[in-house]
Amino acid sequence: MSSHHIIRDKQEPALIIANGEACSMDILDQLLEWSPTVIVLDGALERVISLGIKVDVWLGDFDHANSEDFSHYPLKKVHTPDQNLTDLEKAFEYLLAEGYPAVNVVWASGKRMDHTLNNFHSMVRYGRQLKIVFFDDYSTSYLLPPTFEKWYLAKTPISLIPYGEAHQVTSAGLLYDLNHPLLSLGTQTSSSNETKQDGIVKISYASGSLILMECHD
Amino acid sequence: MSSHHIIRDKQEPALIIANGEACSMDILDQLLEWSPTVIVLDGALERVISLGIKVDVWLGDFDHANSEDFSHYPLKKVHTPDQNLTDLEKAFEYLLAEGYPAVNVVWASGKRMDHTLNNFHSMVRYGRQLKIVFFDDYSTSYLLPPTFEKWYLAKTPISLIPYGEAHQVTSAGLLYDLNHPLLSLGTQTSSSNETKQDGIVKISYASGSLILMECHD
Repeated sequence: MSSHHIIRDKQEPALIIANGEACSMDILDQLLEWSPTVIVLDGALERVISLGIKVDVWLGDFDHANSEDFSHYPLKKVHTPDQNLTDLEKAFEYLLAEGYPAVNVVWASGKRMDHTLNNFHSMVRYGRQLKIVFFDDYSTSYLLPPTFEKWYLAKTPISLIPYGEAHQVTSAGLLYDLNHPLLSLGTQTSSSNETKQDGIVKISYASGSLILMECHD
Repeated sequence: MSSHHIIRDKQEPALIIANGEACSMDILDQLLEWSPTVIVLDGALERVISLGIKVDVWLGDFDHANSEDFSHYPLKKVHTPDQNLTDLEKAFEYLLAEGYPAVNVVWASGKRMDHTLNNFHSMVRYGRQLKIVFFDDYSTSYLLPPTFEKWYLAKTPISLIPYGEAHQVTSAGLLYDLNHPLLSLGTQTSSSNETKQDGIVKISYASGSLILMECHD
């Protein structure tokens, strides 16, 4: 049995705190409970430290004026000046290089919509190599593998958003089950579906990128 | 009859207030300055009325418990039970049927990420028939026509997000000008670019859907 606390064997997901809108402390506390490796992206460090969160890695190109204020904190500073990757993508690259198989991400949505849409793009871009889950106060989102099964309570809201296309999408266990040759952003998505009953939901697709979102008001 | 006195010739953009996160009153006040036709989506009505905003049209399937509380307000109630369209899409359909050429949209992002991603999908889906602009506190977003020119101040942040593909994308006037056979969500976007100098920016693409986002921190 896994005993995550002290010794980190990189089997538990790391936690990335990005630079969008802060989520509730409830969500952060749940994700911090297992003492994940905590990676903070560039400009978010001040907000994270002010919450009393212990940061392991601070990653970015540090082009912010106040980046030296934190030089005395006991954290690993990873300088990633590559302008072709976003800070979030650099964090994914870092985790892949370090051998982590999975990561939870908070503060990846809200505030600037270009960063939000692009962060979901980055989830898709890296989501085949690394198991990535985004959490915010209303949503849990992840890229689906080609076949997916999970047990849900009845009437759980489920949205399936192609980012941008997903081919041969089928489902079982949803109120409006899918059998679509093509879901495509700008043409057809499948938002605001829900589970039919307590039980297993199955979703499969042949190719493309399909994001599952469990959201609530 | 419309109590708004001024004669509306439908040449000014209408205003849709969706059901996501509220924007600042500054933005709302600017958009309300020209007395647009104001359309509020279903569950957002209570929040909108509490702000003292005069609503012209309330649109949705009204499956909320408190939908009768507003029966005495002098607004046009448009019942749109079609489950194949979102409330935002129903509002676009309404405006098209009424002959409006353009609409500004607020409260379309924030809160539930499935609704946010799907609202951008709806912008793309209807954006060739209706000129649609999304505003929130950090972002102004719209679907680009095949060729686009606009005057900008130097160093204005510009992100170009394919939703999901845009082909043969070229630009002039950006710091990192584009000449890409393909931008594609999950593969390559162009976020966090900026204008090079005061002057005209030109962007063109051959096919697909490209969203321009003017964002700030």
